[in-house]
Amino acid sequence: MASRVDSFSSIRTRLAAMPAAAADCVGAVRARQSCLTKPAGSLGRLEEIVEFLAAWQEKPSPTIERPLVLVCAGAHGVVARGVSAFPASVTREMVANFSAGGAAINQICATFGIGLEVLGLGLDTPTADITEAPAMDETTAAASFSRGMQAIPEGIDLLCLGEMGIGNTTIAAAIYHGLYGGKAAEWVGRGTGLDAAGLARKIAAVEAAVRRHRERLADPLALMACLGGREIAAMAGAILSARLKRVPVILDGYVVCAAAAILHALDRSALHHCLAAHVSAEGAHEEVLRRLGKAPLLDLGLRLGEGTGAALAVGLVKAAVACHKGMATFAEARVAGRLEGDTNG
Amino acid sequence: MASRVDSFSSIRTRLAAMPAAAADCVGAVRARQSCLTKPAGSLGRLEEIVEFLAAWQEKPSPTIERPLVLVCAGAHGVVARGVSAFPASVTREMVANFSAGGAAINQICATFGIGLEVLGLGLDTPTADITEAPAMDETTAAASFSRGMQAIPEGIDLLCLGEMGIGNTTIAAAIYHGLYGGKAAEWVGRGTGLDAAGLARKIAAVEAAVRRHRERLADPLALMACLGGREIAAMAGAILSARLKRVPVILDGYVVCAAAAILHALDRSALHHCLAAHVSAEGAHEEVLRRLGKAPLLDLGLRLGEGTGAALAVGLVKAAVACHKGMATFAEARVAGRLEGDTNG
Repeated sequence: MASRVDSFSSIRTRLAAMPAAAADCVGAVRARQSCLTKPAGSLGRLEEIVEFLAAWQEKPSPTIERPLVLVCAGAHGVVARGVSAFPASVTREMVANFSAGGAAINQICATFGIGLEVLGLGLDTPTADITEAPAMDETTAAASFSRGMQAIPEGIDLLCLGEMGIGNTTIAAAIYHGLYGGKAAEWVGRGTGLDAAGLARKIAAVEAAVRRHRERLADPLALMACLGGREIAAMAGAILSARLKRVPVILDGYVVCAAAAILHALDRSALHHCLAAHVSAEGAHEEVLRRLGKAPLLDLGLRLGEGTGAALAVGLVKAAVACHKGMATFAEARVAGRLEGDTNG
Repeated sequence: MASRVDSFSSIRTRLAAMPAAAADCVGAVRARQSCLTKPAGSLGRLEEIVEFLAAWQEKPSPTIERPLVLVCAGAHGVVARGVSAFPASVTREMVANFSAGGAAINQICATFGIGLEVLGLGLDTPTADITEAPAMDETTAAASFSRGMQAIPEGIDLLCLGEMGIGNTTIAAAIYHGLYGGKAAEWVGRGTGLDAAGLARKIAAVEAAVRRHRERLADPLALMACLGGREIAAMAGAILSARLKRVPVILDGYVVCAAAAILHALDRSALHHCLAAHVSAEGAHEEVLRRLGKAPLLDLGLRLGEGTGAALAVGLVKAAVACHKGMATFAEARVAGRLEGDTNG
């Protein structure tokens, strides 16, 4: 199957081809875990992480040797509505900061030995203001999705998604409001630090956008084009491509999950190969994770984006794999097992 | 001041000499944080961690170059009451496993570049069964405390505490019940995985121990000797010694916090240089952290001990320091700041 998509129908074809979890590899992990020198289950979610990796890497002994953070950046016409505390120019400036190694995500990637790629999408040609027109047409949305699909290099064994884009917490809020209903205000947060007047403008923009496009929001791909964000479409493509290539994914925060939510709305099983790194301090992220069925690994009050939460979670994932691979078994270490007559776990 | 203690009164003298937080260093960290290329406060608890390190390392630019995990191991006479799912021999066997590099803590230390020291305390001479006699006399308790004090090498910049000792979740539960009252059952968990009958024996042992020694429990140091655990006393000594040497501490789980709770009962400020790594799946650890005034960094369902939770938290601490030191400022990266007229945030 060619890896390019050029229309919503070719995206749907890819979705229909998603592989399932490798149950035999999960079984192999569980068998080894029961022999390692620790009480059964005592490594908690670290044990769950190793099973998850085995399921989606299709490896009985999972690896984290080439993890990658992919940061997708986009520009948003809705910034004209006064919805961000920072000017639109910051998106390009931060992309340059990523290249120069000066952003938070650079430091966290260096700490944990994670590769970093930045994918800029139409930074010179912002999407339309979603309160006035669809962000993108189908061709542009599919092309952005395709660019995300192409951005997964061969040989990586873990993909972390991050994003940059002044205005994109407004875009994400509109996507959640469009997908899940409720009131616009329930989905809107302060982003990079809006004051009360800015928050009111942001809520009004989200309301107006969803009202304007309401007749096209039943199809999640049409919703993606209307409410947009090229980086949202690219991240959705990256998540799907990772599934097809058997690369597990770590989702970052509030904006990354908007891309994930579009796939989840298309197919309830589309995020089974994804872990939620953290619950963000931004707005409704906790409720979003609940709707996606994801329990976050971390809760550190982060609201920076860039993939910072996902990259922090890689530390935990590396430690989980190191324990699974490196620990001695009871037999190897000559450590006595449980007392007889005590059989619960 | 000599670093050895040989009596409870010399421990009290050391407690009275604890240094305070370095407010000027915290101020220096905050000043730099406000210039870094991120929205104010958007790194959440990572920013709080850097301020904490500055306060207790007394450094305007904190470092994590020589972190150490100190695992204190002890042997407990109360194991004779049938309170553990594993035989007492496992303590020695696991200490050998630490030396051979086969335990979980070895793998996590290797993942994050953390040194590991194991301090075995009286492994051939278990403390008395606390349901029948005081675990230790004052001389033994003070000597164990002193050994913990001596175990902090010069030059480390972060101390993580861990423990090993079959039976020591019973010891910890007795300490909590002795310090905080309530019912024994509220403080007792399943440890390494007790069945229902074992849990009932464990609750009975904790009740009996606290009842037997109740007249000596008002003084936290006498409580430490009666309910004991040499490794508990040693960890309390290590926490205090770290404070005196300006080394910040990361506490591990349910058992480590019992040592911390003794110091906290002696002086409410004695743990200000300590972070709680995680909330354990064991019993009442969440309530213990609430009483100690500590918000855990991680919640991963861990209940292994060995310092595994504390070592996992070092990954977050290293990332926090890397962001603080390595990020560019707005001026350096030529990134525009907040829009005028939007001042919250």
